[in-house]
Amino acid sequence: MIRVVFFDLDDTIVDTTRLAEMARRNAIENMVRHGLPVDFDTAYHELLELINEYGSNFGKHFDYLLRRLDLPSNPKWIAAGVISYHNTKFAYLRTVKGVRRVLLDLQREGYRLGIITDGDPIKQWEKILRLELDAYFDDVFISDYLGVKKPHPKIFRKALRKMGVEPEEAMMVGDRLYSDVYGAKNVGMVTVWFKYGKYANRETEYRDYADFTIRSLEELPAILRGLRGEEEQERSDTEVHAD
Amino acid sequence: MIRVVFFDLDDTIVDTTRLAEMARRNAIENMVRHGLPVDFDTAYHELLELINEYGSNFGKHFDYLLRRLDLPSNPKWIAAGVISYHNTKFAYLRTVKGVRRVLLDLQREGYRLGIITDGDPIKQWEKILRLELDAYFDDVFISDYLGVKKPHPKIFRKALRKMGVEPEEAMMVGDRLYSDVYGAKNVGMVTVWFKYGKYANRETEYRDYADFTIRSLEELPAILRGLRGEEEQERSDTEVHAD
Repeated sequence: MIRVVFFDLDDTIVDTTRLAEMARRNAIENMVRHGLPVDFDTAYHELLELINEYGSNFGKHFDYLLRRLDLPSNPKWIAAGVISYHNTKFAYLRTVKGVRRVLLDLQREGYRLGIITDGDPIKQWEKILRLELDAYFDDVFISDYLGVKKPHPKIFRKALRKMGVEPEEAMMVGDRLYSDVYGAKNVGMVTVWFKYGKYANRETEYRDYADFTIRSLEELPAILRGLRGEEEQERSDTEVHAD
Repeated sequence: MIRVVFFDLDDTIVDTTRLAEMARRNAIENMVRHGLPVDFDTAYHELLELINEYGSNFGKHFDYLLRRLDLPSNPKWIAAGVISYHNTKFAYLRTVKGVRRVLLDLQREGYRLGIITDGDPIKQWEKILRLELDAYFDDVFISDYLGVKKPHPKIFRKALRKMGVEPEEAMMVGDRLYSDVYGAKNVGMVTVWFKYGKYANRETEYRDYADFTIRSLEELPAILRGLRGEEEQERSDTEVHAD
């Protein structure tokens, strides 16, 4: 019987990819408005390429963007980008559609909830606290804080131990087949692949590790009711048998 | 005759110290609200001591605060501090009282305006652009960008050269007697000490380098009119003499 439901954070609870795209577009727009002598499409395309190469947590995106565009370093243009990027991130931070209702439903039905996520611990907590999501969750497990990344079994095992449940009593819900689904299945948890965002069509070689695939988080309560129903059925079958 | 008026940025144009104090208080309050097991006064006092030792641009204030308070590292508490600190900085960024009116008055009377400031170039431009102050100024000179700090003569000479004026044709207005007043006087500029903020009673050994002392920026137009009047007087005296 499932007692605990764990969620991934980015693109499962928080609508991260959409927000990042908005923030980057607004940043380039503001840089152009403040004199960056390049058209929007050229600069935006170059920024995406750069992020692809250096990763999204690289601290010098706008600095390197100027270098790639053969432009002199200019703190005014960089500041214009930074301002719009941050303003967008703070003003448009949102949960994925349906999240709050689903979390409340699951709590009402007696499930305990947790987060298992990769990423910078302070930045991840910033998202959780800005969205006032902390009250929904019993605990938050952030891989960088433990020195391992999903799908390393250590983070899943630590989460299970802290919540006091066996692997088969826990469900993991996430958008990434490799980190979330493969990782959780590996330690024996029930797995749900949330087919959403930029990973909706990637890493499909791990598809078999998903016990369930959903396109909306609002499908979760029904899945959990289904699992409970099956178990009750099994139990009553066994009782009949024992008679 | 004065043609250009240069201003320092922090605590002359932008009300930086007041903002920083608000941001720090709100940060500690939010950390306590999210479970930091220390009372506000203890934590705030410790933070001020830390900033005093490590400087205000040190990147790990909240991290070090926990160490000083003998508390375990906790990304949730740090995130709570970071959120309130940033929210305050973005929401309450303000110019010093009277700034915009004075800048407009000076522009209307034909003076060109500039900024000569220390600090991280991107952060300084962030303040200027967030407050939409850039249109008032012909140029902005940021010391870190040039590799020197005020009162080094290089930054003042560079500003004069870029604006195409002689030192005696330029006025420097700033809150610091050492960096702004002593530095500008050293290269031959007319100096105004803005006795404001945390430096109002410091570095007074450099007081003699100030040609004028003001407690409100709104005194500036009258000073400039006074200087212009004196010159006209001198010129007409000379003309009379030459007759």
